[in-house]
Amino acid sequence: MPLLVGFMYRVVSSTTHLLDFLEEPIPGVGTYDDFHTIDWVREKCKDRERHRKINAKKKESAWEFTKSLYDAWSGWLVVTLTGLASGALAGLIDISADWLNDIKEGVCLNAMWFNHEQCCWGSNETTFAERDKCPQWKSWAGLILGQEEGPGSYIMNYFMYIYWALSFALLAVLLVKVFAPYACGSGIPEIKTILSGFIIRGYLGKWTLLIKTVTLVLAVASGLSLGKEGPLVHVACCCGNIFSYLFPKYSKNEAKKREVLSAASAAGVSVAFGAPIGGVLFSLEEVSYYFPLKTLWRSFFAALVAAFVLRSINPFGNSRLVLFYVEYHTPWYLFELIPFILLGVFGGLWGAFFIKANIAWCRRRKSTRFGKYPVLEVIFVAAITAVVAFPNPYTRQNTSELIKELFTDCGPLESSQLCQYRSQMNGSKAFVDASPNKPAGSGVYTAMWQLCLALVFKIIMTIFTFGLKVPAGLFIPSMAIGAIAGRIVGIAVEQLAYYHHDWLVFREWCEVGTDCITPGLYAMVGAAACLGGVTRMTVSLVVIVFELTGGLEYIVPLMAAVMTSKWVGDAFGREGIYESHIRLNGYPFLDAKSEFTHTTLAREVMRPQRSDPPLAVLTQDDLTVEELQVIINETSYNGFPVIVSKESQRLVGFALRRDITIAIENARRKQEGILLTSRVYFTQHAPTLPADSPRPLKLRSILDMSPFTVTDHTPMEIVVDIFRKLGLRQCLVTHNGRLLGIITKKDILRHMAQLTNQDPDNIMFN
Amino acid sequence: MPLLVGFMYRVVSSTTHLLDFLEEPIPGVGTYDDFHTIDWVREKCKDRERHRKINAKKKESAWEFTKSLYDAWSGWLVVTLTGLASGALAGLIDISADWLNDIKEGVCLNAMWFNHEQCCWGSNETTFAERDKCPQWKSWAGLILGQEEGPGSYIMNYFMYIYWALSFALLAVLLVKVFAPYACGSGIPEIKTILSGFIIRGYLGKWTLLIKTVTLVLAVASGLSLGKEGPLVHVACCCGNIFSYLFPKYSKNEAKKREVLSAASAAGVSVAFGAPIGGVLFSLEEVSYYFPLKTLWRSFFAALVAAFVLRSINPFGNSRLVLFYVEYHTPWYLFELIPFILLGVFGGLWGAFFIKANIAWCRRRKSTRFGKYPVLEVIFVAAITAVVAFPNPYTRQNTSELIKELFTDCGPLESSQLCQYRSQMNGSKAFVDASPNKPAGSGVYTAMWQLCLALVFKIIMTIFTFGLKVPAGLFIPSMAIGAIAGRIVGIAVEQLAYYHHDWLVFREWCEVGTDCITPGLYAMVGAAACLGGVTRMTVSLVVIVFELTGGLEYIVPLMAAVMTSKWVGDAFGREGIYESHIRLNGYPFLDAKSEFTHTTLAREVMRPQRSDPPLAVLTQDDLTVEELQVIINETSYNGFPVIVSKESQRLVGFALRRDITIAIENARRKQEGILLTSRVYFTQHAPTLPADSPRPLKLRSILDMSPFTVTDHTPMEIVVDIFRKLGLRQCLVTHNGRLLGIITKKDILRHMAQLTNQDPDNIMFN
Repeated sequence: MPLLVGFMYRVVSSTTHLLDFLEEPIPGVGTYDDFHTIDWVREKCKDRERHRKINAKKKESAWEFTKSLYDAWSGWLVVTLTGLASGALAGLIDISADWLNDIKEGVCLNAMWFNHEQCCWGSNETTFAERDKCPQWKSWAGLILGQEEGPGSYIMNYFMYIYWALSFALLAVLLVKVFAPYACGSGIPEIKTILSGFIIRGYLGKWTLLIKTVTLVLAVASGLSLGKEGPLVHVACCCGNIFSYLFPKYSKNEAKKREVLSAASAAGVSVAFGAPIGGVLFSLEEVSYYFPLKTLWRSFFAALVAAFVLRSINPFGNSRLVLFYVEYHTPWYLFELIPFILLGVFGGLWGAFFIKANIAWCRRRKSTRFGKYPVLEVIFVAAITAVVAFPNPYTRQNTSELIKELFTDCGPLESSQLCQYRSQMNGSKAFVDASPNKPAGSGVYTAMWQLCLALVFKIIMTIFTFGLKVPAGLFIPSMAIGAIAGRIVGIAVEQLAYYHHDWLVFREWCEVGTDCITPGLYAMVGAAACLGGVTRMTVSLVVIVFELTGGLEYIVPLMAAVMTSKWVGDAFGREGIYESHIRLNGYPFLDAKSEFTHTTLAREVMRPQRSDPPLAVLTQDDLTVEELQVIINETSYNGFPVIVSKESQRLVGFALRRDITIAIENARRKQEGILLTSRVYFTQHAPTLPADSPRPLKLRSILDMSPFTVTDHTPMEIVVDIFRKLGLRQCLVTHNGRLLGIITKKDILRHMAQLTNQDPDNIMFN
Repeated sequence: MPLLVGFMYRVVSSTTHLLDFLEEPIPGVGTYDDFHTIDWVREKCKDRERHRKINAKKKESAWEFTKSLYDAWSGWLVVTLTGLASGALAGLIDISADWLNDIKEGVCLNAMWFNHEQCCWGSNETTFAERDKCPQWKSWAGLILGQEEGPGSYIMNYFMYIYWALSFALLAVLLVKVFAPYACGSGIPEIKTILSGFIIRGYLGKWTLLIKTVTLVLAVASGLSLGKEGPLVHVACCCGNIFSYLFPKYSKNEAKKREVLSAASAAGVSVAFGAPIGGVLFSLEEVSYYFPLKTLWRSFFAALVAAFVLRSINPFGNSRLVLFYVEYHTPWYLFELIPFILLGVFGGLWGAFFIKANIAWCRRRKSTRFGKYPVLEVIFVAAITAVVAFPNPYTRQNTSELIKELFTDCGPLESSQLCQYRSQMNGSKAFVDASPNKPAGSGVYTAMWQLCLALVFKIIMTIFTFGLKVPAGLFIPSMAIGAIAGRIVGIAVEQLAYYHHDWLVFREWCEVGTDCITPGLYAMVGAAACLGGVTRMTVSLVVIVFELTGGLEYIVPLMAAVMTSKWVGDAFGREGIYESHIRLNGYPFLDAKSEFTHTTLAREVMRPQRSDPPLAVLTQDDLTVEELQVIINETSYNGFPVIVSKESQRLVGFALRRDITIAIENARRKQEGILLTSRVYFTQHAPTLPADSPRPLKLRSILDMSPFTVTDHTPMEIVVDIFRKLGLRQCLVTHNGRLLGIITKKDILRHMAQLTNQDPDNIMFN
C-alpha cells in the first residue's frame, strides 16, 4: 500500500518538478523583514541551487566559465578584502587614538600631528631615562602659562585634560546619536545574534562603520574606562558585510553572508590583539553559530591578512604584531599555582559581580526616564572619569599602556616607579642592576597604593561605562582590572618570598639572591582571569594570551586561572556578559553552549495550548483568495501550515505569510481574472471547479513541501537540539501523522525563560 | 479539532509518562551490536536523563552529593588520566624506538640500554665535531670483526643492519597477527569512523594498546618507511577508551565516550609533534564528528597534560616540547612565494598520486591471494627497504632525524654534509663561518644526489608500506618526502641567487654577501605541502608547523603551500588518504566535509523503491507475538516503524529489532502467561480483547515515540544535513502524514556512491 502511493506520487510529481522549475520566481519571495530570523536550511538550499546553475552553465562559453571561476574565488576575495580593510582601519584607529590621547596632555610644537612619542623621537637631547621629555613637546600649561612645573601649571593641565576629555566624549555621543545609533556599545552581543541568523538592517552598514570608526577614536581618547578591542570586531564585521555586497553569492544569501562575518570577526580579534589563531578560535568559540570547516580556513586567512596589514602599518612602533609583547626569563614554580588560582577566583567574582551590576544598571537605564538623556549621561560619566583619573598616574595614562607596563617584568632598562627596588648591595634606592628579587623601595610602595586606588576606580567606572551610547569595548578595562590585581598579588608574593625565604615553600624553590617570582606574569594571569570571568571565554582566551607571550611554558598558569575564573563565575550565573546583554535586549538568540536540561515534551511548548485559539491552518484546495486574506489579516503569524483537509489534519506543507502576500499581489498585478472569489490551491493540479467560477490561483511554488516535523512526544531537549543545529525558524508538531501545532524559535526561547523563572515576554522579536 | 486532540492526549499521557517511568528498564535495551552505528540523539538523551537523576538525588545525603561531585569531575579526571598516559607512553615509545634503532648499527659497551647518543654523552674524549664517535659505542663490525673501517666491516655492518631490520619487522608482524589484528595501520581511518558513531569492539581495547605500543617501536626501528605519529593517536585513543571504563558516565554512553576519544586524539597529536594547539585543531578538523565546546576545552587540557608529561620525560634530550625545533634568522621575500607555491603543487601531485597508487595496491591486496600472506609481505618489504636504504646515509638514518637535519639551517656549528659550502674568502672547502649565501661545495653536490635517490626511494617504498600489517603512520614519510624536495629546491634557488645575483628578482632583494635564501625553510614548506596533499588537512597542519617554529613570520609561506597543495590535490580527487581508506574498508562514514550537491529527493533514496518488497511495518495493537517474531525472523532490518493501522498508514513510532527481541525474551522469562498468541500492543492501554485470550504483551517502553521524519519531497541535501548534524541512524519518510518508507545511513551512503559512479555494495556495515 505505501509502495503504491509512493509509485503513483512519483510519476505525478516528476512533472510537477518540471513545471515548478519553468515557472518564474516571484520577486521578493525568499527575502526577510527587518528583525526577523532567517531560515538556515532554506538559505543553504538556495545557495546550492545557485551553485548548480552556475556549474551547469560553466561549459557553455568562455564567459560563463570565467563567471564560474569568479564565483568560486569570490569567497577568498571577500575575506582578503575584509582582512585588508580591517587591518588598515585598525592601524588608523590605533594611530589616531594615540595622537588624540596625547592631545589631552599637550601638543607637539614642530608637528601638530605627532603624538608624544613620535614628537620626541627626533629629539637627540634626551637621554634614555628621560625619553618622555623633550623640548618639542609642550604640555598645555607650558604652552599657555609658559611654565611646566608648579601648582598653577598642574591645575592648568588638569583643566585642559578635563576639557579635552569632555569634548571628545560629547563629540562621540553626538555623532552616534545623530548619525548612527547602532554604532554604540561593543557590538559583540548584536554580532552574535546576527550570526545566529537574525536580521538587523543597518547594523553592519557603511554609516555604522564610518561613525563607529570615528567615535571609537574619540571615545578611547576621552579617557573613559573602555577599550577598542570589542568595537574592532564590529568594525571588521561591517567591512565584511560591505564587501560581501560586491559578490551576489554573498549579498543575496543571508547564510553565506554570515560565513563572511564569521571570518571578519576573526580578523577583528586578530588585529585587536595581534593574535590570528586566537582570533579564529574566538570566532569559533564565542561568536559564530554556523561554522563549517571552509569558514575555519577562510577565517584563518582573513585573520592573517589583517594581522600582516596591521604589522606593515606598525602603529605600536615596535614592528611587533602583538599589542602587549612580553618576554619572561624565569620559569614558574608549582607553589605559584596557589596565587594563580586565587587570581582566578578573583576574576570569577569580578566577572559575576560586573555582569550583575552592569545588567542591573542597564535595565534601570532602559526602564526609567534616566535613559532618555544619553548625552548628559556620557558627559557626566566622562567628567567624573576625567576628574578622578588625572591625579593618579595609573589611571591618567592610556589603559593599554597601563596594561603593558603591568605585564612587563622589571629589567635593568625599566625606569618605571614599579621597578624601584632597593638594591641589596648598598641599601640605597636605585634602579635594579640585575634580576634577583629585592626588597621593595618607596617607589614600589607608592605604586601599590596608587594601583589599589586605580583598581577601585576602574571597577566602579567600568560598570557605569559599558552600556553608554558610545563605542565601548570591555576587553581592555577587564584586563586592566585583572592586571592591577595580579601585579599587586605578584609584588606581595615577591616580598613575602624575600622576607620569608626560610619558609618551606620558598626554601624549596627560591634560593636567596635569585629571581624567583615574576610579578609581570601575575599581572598577565590576572588579566586573563578577569577577562575570562566577564566573557566566559576559555580556549580562545588562553590562546590569545599565549600568542602574546609566545611561550608554551606559561599556558598552565593561564589555564588554571581561566578555568577557576570560569567555574567561580558560573557558580553565580552561567551567562557571560554578551549573553546577558542579548537577553536584556530581547534578541532571539538560542545559545549553543547552554544545555537544555528539562524534561518537557514538545506538546507542552507548542502552540496552540489549551487556552489559545485554534491553530491557523490553510487547506490545500478549498480556500478562496478572500478567505485567505481574512486569515492573513486576522492573525499575525509569520507562516501557516497547509493541510489536506480540516477533517484529516494531515500535513502537506508550510507557507510563509510574507510569501503569500507577495504572491497574491503579484498574481493580481500580472494574471488576468484573479478575483476575491478565486479558489486558491496548493496542490499539483487545479481542483475541479464549476464552469462559471473565476480563474483559480496556484500557490504551490511558494509552498515549502518539506517542513520539519516532530511528534508531540519528542522531548524538548531534542527539539532544541534540532533548532540549534539546523538553524530552524519553526517546526510543526504532529501526533500519529496528524498536525497538532507549531513550535517557533520564539516559543522555545519563551519556554526556556519560563523554566528559569524569567519574564517570558522579554523575547521581543521573531 | 487539533486543539481537542491535543488536550485529550495531554490528560491521557501525563499518566503514561508516570507509568513508563515506574516500569523497570529491560536490561540490554539501548546497547549496540558490534559493527553497528549508534544513535547520537538517543545517547545524548540518555546522558541528560542520568544527569537529571544524579542532580535530583544530590540533596538527599552527603554520599549522594559526593557522588554527584565525582560525576561532575569525572570528565576532567578521565582526560587528565588520558593525557598522562598518552604522554608517558609517547615518551616510552620515543626512547625505546631510539634505542632499538641504534641497535641496528651497533651497541654501547658499558651500558647496553644506552642509545648511540646517550652512550657518547659520558665520554669526554670526543670533540664537538666528532660527537658521534666515542670508544664506548661499537658498531657490529667493530664488535665482531674487531675493526671499524674497511670493506669487510662495511659488509658486516650492512648484514647486521638487514638482520636486525628483518628481525624487528618479523616480530612486529607476528605480534600483530597473533595477538591484536587491530593494531596494524595508522588507525586514524578507523578512529574517524568510530568517532562518527560506529562500533568496532576491541579496536581501542587494552590488547590493542599493548601490542600497538610494542610493535610500533619495532616497526619504527625496523627502518620501514613509516612514522609513529598516526599510531600515537591510536595509542592515545586506546588510553582514553580504557580510562573511560572507570567512569560509568562514559563507559555506559557511547556518545559521551566519543567526547573522551576526541580529547584523546588531540593528546595524541600533541605528543606526536609537541603541538598542543595543533593537536586540538587536528581533532576538530580531521577526526572528530561531534565536537561540543566542552570537548574543545577538555581536548586542550588533555593535549597540554600530555605535552608536559612528554617534556618531563624529555626523550629528545633537548628539553624542548617540539619534535623538530628550528629557528630561522632571516625573513622570507615575496619572490620566494613562487618556489613555495611550486612546492605546494608538488605536494598536491604527490598526495593525489600517493592516494591513487596506495589505494590501488591495497585493493589488489584485498582482492587477490596476495593478501593472504601478510607476514611474507612485511618481510619482503622490510628486506627491500633495508637493502636499498643502507648505502645512502639519508635513508639509513632515522626518518625523524633526517627531517630535522633538512629543516635545520646551516650555521657555524652545523657539521653535516649539507652545509659544506665553499667559503668565499679562500675558495677552499670549509665549514661556513658566517651566514651569507655561498657557492655549494662538493659535499652539497653529493648530498643533492643522495637526496634525489632518497626521494625516489621514499616515494616508492611509502606506497607499499602504508597498509602493511604493522603499525604504520604516514605523517613522517610524507613530511620526509616534502622536506627532501623542499631542501633540493631551496639549495637550487640559493645557488641561483648566488650565481645570478644580477637577475632582477635577486638584485631587488638579495644583496651580494648577505644571506637571503634559507634552504631549511623550503624543506619545512615542502614537508607541510606534502603532508597537506596526502591528508588534505589545512588549518591544523599550518598550526602544527607554526608551533614547530614559533614564528608567525613563516605562516604565509606555509599557508600558500598548503593551500596550493590542497587545491591541486582536490583537482584529482577530493578525498584524503584517510577517507579513501575508510571507503576502501566500507565503513559507514558520512563525511561532514564533502558537500552533497545533487538534486535528488528523499523519495528517490528511501526504501522500498518500486522493485522492492513492501516496507516491513508493525501495527500498534493487532499483532500477536508469533506474527511479530515472523516479521523479525523474515527480515534483517534493524528496526521497524509502528503505525496506527495498515489502512491509515499513520506513523506512531519506531522500534528497534534488538530491543524487540530482548523485550520478548525478557517477558517470556519474567512475565507469566505470555504465549505465542499473546497480543502485542504499543499503545498506552491494552486493546479490548476477548475474555479467553492470553495476557497481552506491552511494548510501549521500547517504542521510540519521537522518530525523525521527513517528507518525500525533502531534497536529499537537507536529509544528508540532518543525518550529519544530528547523528541519525535512520529517518522515516512520510507523504501528507502517511508513512511511505525509510532512509538509513547506509541508504544515504549507497546513494552517494551511486551518484559518483562507485560500487554501492561497497558499504558493508550498518
